[in-house]
Amino acid sequence: MNHEALLTDLYELTMLQAYFDEGMQDRAVFELFVRRLPEARNFLLVAGIEQALDYLECLRFTPDELGWLADSGRFSSAFLQSLRDFRFSGDVWAMREGTPCFANEPILRVEAPIGEAQFVESRLINLIHFSTMVASKAARCVLAAQGRLLVDFGLRRAHGGEAGLLAARASHLAGFAGTATVIAGQRFGIPLFGTMAHSYIEAHAREADAFARFAASQPGNVTLLIDTYDTELAAHRVVELAPALKARGVRLAAVRLDSGDLAAHARAVRAILDDGGLTDVRLFASGNLDEYRIAALLAAGAPIDGFGVGTMLTTSGDAPSLDMVYKLQRYAGVPRRKRSEGKATWPDAKQVWRQRDAHGTPREDEITLADEIRSPSESTSLLAPVMRSGRRVAPRESLDALRQHAADKLMHLPPALRALDPPAQPYPVTISPRLRALAEELDREPH
Amino acid sequence: MNHEALLTDLYELTMLQAYFDEGMQDRAVFELFVRRLPEARNFLLVAGIEQALDYLECLRFTPDELGWLADSGRFSSAFLQSLRDFRFSGDVWAMREGTPCFANEPILRVEAPIGEAQFVESRLINLIHFSTMVASKAARCVLAAQGRLLVDFGLRRAHGGEAGLLAARASHLAGFAGTATVIAGQRFGIPLFGTMAHSYIEAHAREADAFARFAASQPGNVTLLIDTYDTELAAHRVVELAPALKARGVRLAAVRLDSGDLAAHARAVRAILDDGGLTDVRLFASGNLDEYRIAALLAAGAPIDGFGVGTMLTTSGDAPSLDMVYKLQRYAGVPRRKRSEGKATWPDAKQVWRQRDAHGTPREDEITLADEIRSPSESTSLLAPVMRSGRRVAPRESLDALRQHAADKLMHLPPALRALDPPAQPYPVTISPRLRALAEELDREPH
Repeated sequence: MNHEALLTDLYELTMLQAYFDEGMQDRAVFELFVRRLPEARNFLLVAGIEQALDYLECLRFTPDELGWLADSGRFSSAFLQSLRDFRFSGDVWAMREGTPCFANEPILRVEAPIGEAQFVESRLINLIHFSTMVASKAARCVLAAQGRLLVDFGLRRAHGGEAGLLAARASHLAGFAGTATVIAGQRFGIPLFGTMAHSYIEAHAREADAFARFAASQPGNVTLLIDTYDTELAAHRVVELAPALKARGVRLAAVRLDSGDLAAHARAVRAILDDGGLTDVRLFASGNLDEYRIAALLAAGAPIDGFGVGTMLTTSGDAPSLDMVYKLQRYAGVPRRKRSEGKATWPDAKQVWRQRDAHGTPREDEITLADEIRSPSESTSLLAPVMRSGRRVAPRESLDALRQHAADKLMHLPPALRALDPPAQPYPVTISPRLRALAEELDREPH
Repeated sequence: MNHEALLTDLYELTMLQAYFDEGMQDRAVFELFVRRLPEARNFLLVAGIEQALDYLECLRFTPDELGWLADSGRFSSAFLQSLRDFRFSGDVWAMREGTPCFANEPILRVEAPIGEAQFVESRLINLIHFSTMVASKAARCVLAAQGRLLVDFGLRRAHGGEAGLLAARASHLAGFAGTATVIAGQRFGIPLFGTMAHSYIEAHAREADAFARFAASQPGNVTLLIDTYDTELAAHRVVELAPALKARGVRLAAVRLDSGDLAAHARAVRAILDDGGLTDVRLFASGNLDEYRIAALLAAGAPIDGFGVGTMLTTSGDAPSLDMVYKLQRYAGVPRRKRSEGKATWPDAKQVWRQRDAHGTPREDEITLADEIRSPSESTSLLAPVMRSGRRVAPRESLDALRQHAADKLMHLPPALRALDPPAQPYPVTISPRLRALAEELDREPH
């Protein structure tokens, strides 16, 4: 991952120069949140905080970048000089990755000198938006799959390379077993899965030869793709080949279906394999899948053991963006409130408190001012300090630990939120009386 | 841009090892194309070819990557040894960026030893898919905007950093004037645009102070954001400030609207500015815009001079993926055809011929075998050689030249394709009789 300082919007730099020129360097509080959830999302699953902190820790302008900015003629030399030592020196609070969250809840809070806090807006949103969007989509697939194996197959139609890499991480965090994207194995230790392409089959004169040769090259764990010509015919070929493969020590793990009526093919293929004694060979399905198709296949009783989810996962196809923003809430000790039509925000630094019932199921969230306290026996605060003066307050958590956290939180969600359809009643998120009073007070002020 | 070799699907590596083990190294022809267009796209605009060629030219495995692959235990040492010298040595034909294309038309054709041609599949699709998708969306905005200034504002909700960078390039190629994404200025020389954020206004006690100070810091070309509190009130403040700004040499270029009923605000603000003598200050609008909203605003007579298009552009919000694939069409001199249900392909290396009328307007495309020739007086072939033995055949074209090409081709599209609604008749793409006969012949063969 590259966190170039110039991966930002021009206005971040022009505002930084204006703050510099004005000598404005008081501390500001910004919060990142989603204004409203997409229709087809009952909750969001927080992700991308690690990448955001990486960015904040390593942010600096290289001499090349400073030279380019100077050549652009847009900036004063005094300002450019100040960028040489530009670092993020602020404090950050965040929700833990894998935590379900809702509209208007701060996911991340930044407190820093205003120039620093402002400048990081574009890339913070860029990172947390994408990972949270994909983790939220992936969580729905996980809930729909009812324990079946899920694998991210979506690199090719992800929006660029970084999207492919981060989608693998976000979906694994949300409960996917792994990914086909090799670099995600290298960078994050995510388990890798892969089969074979139709082209490999077609490059051989006979399908059965392709199966035998691929198995010989990868004897440890073979998944054969059986839909290139005729799915059921190919399943028979697998049965015929099985004794020879076994004799050569090949472990035939699964066959993959990738086209046609997957439920019908799965039933037919399962019967062929079972009749041929291959009861332990699993069925893996792919091809334009999402949570709805997975749920429909399982509801139809399709004997499928695992799913590859590609494009619809890594592009979050039915909700390819979230209304995520990063807004100034306090400057120089004074609460601030954006009041644009339809885009007003809750002012000042805030906290989110989640009440759970005796089984650990969330009942209600309350958004409060940051200094409000709720009884720990009744509520948990979701925003915790993660960075102090520009440095992480704790070593980074393992992806496995975050994944476990996500699994636990998903399991405890109310059943209406775990469903694919919208709940009859939205999950209740209330605003504390003090916060509401502050907002009303600010609305009466001149500007 | 980083073109790591491990930014690929695992099966590309396992198939490469299988081809290595089998000694299969005959030449293969793969073609990249879109199986069908999204409902809301009357054509696609080819983009991302430059990035694809960059990838092919610089593809290699680093010692670190080879070490990681060895540690994974999945690959033989003989195979890993062979990867040390792995390079792309093939030939490539491609459509020129900025060319409109349609379903089933090869956009890129790769001919290389099968392992090389197969391995590059994942990243080639990843690159060309995204840029073509965004250029196609951008082209619709350009057609809707009828000559108004368009700026890419979409970095923050693009899917990761590479998506933000490449979206700026693809939209500029399609006719956007520029982008807010600074790194796109640095890497590609794309003109940069920017204004100010609401947070900047809110950090000042009074809106008028924020306007005055921002203008002082950026006197050359100032755009003021006027919707933080009350849009029309802010417009009056701009009029009041104008004489003082002018006296200090500030060039007040535009005001920006970002919320509410943009048409109504635009009319009211235009009147306020005109009454105040600021007839040369332009109106720039942003806020959840796409081609439909731009068309509606202009149809309503909104006096808006420019548009910032963000999320819907860089995520191609209504069509966030294309059904783009990369398929084997020939191996060892023998045409191949994938026959999976609903996913059959036209076999062998192909060419696309475009017939145009006397005004240069395309009338019909014909997909032929690569060695078929059509009269140059009637048709133009769209696929041209761009790489020979792994090296570009010509210096890279300037983005300006590609942008000019795109503008010319968009201008000459039939009116029904230039509209936002689907055409009554789809653009005709025919299959040559020889190609059709070959496909039927292959279907009769055993496999």
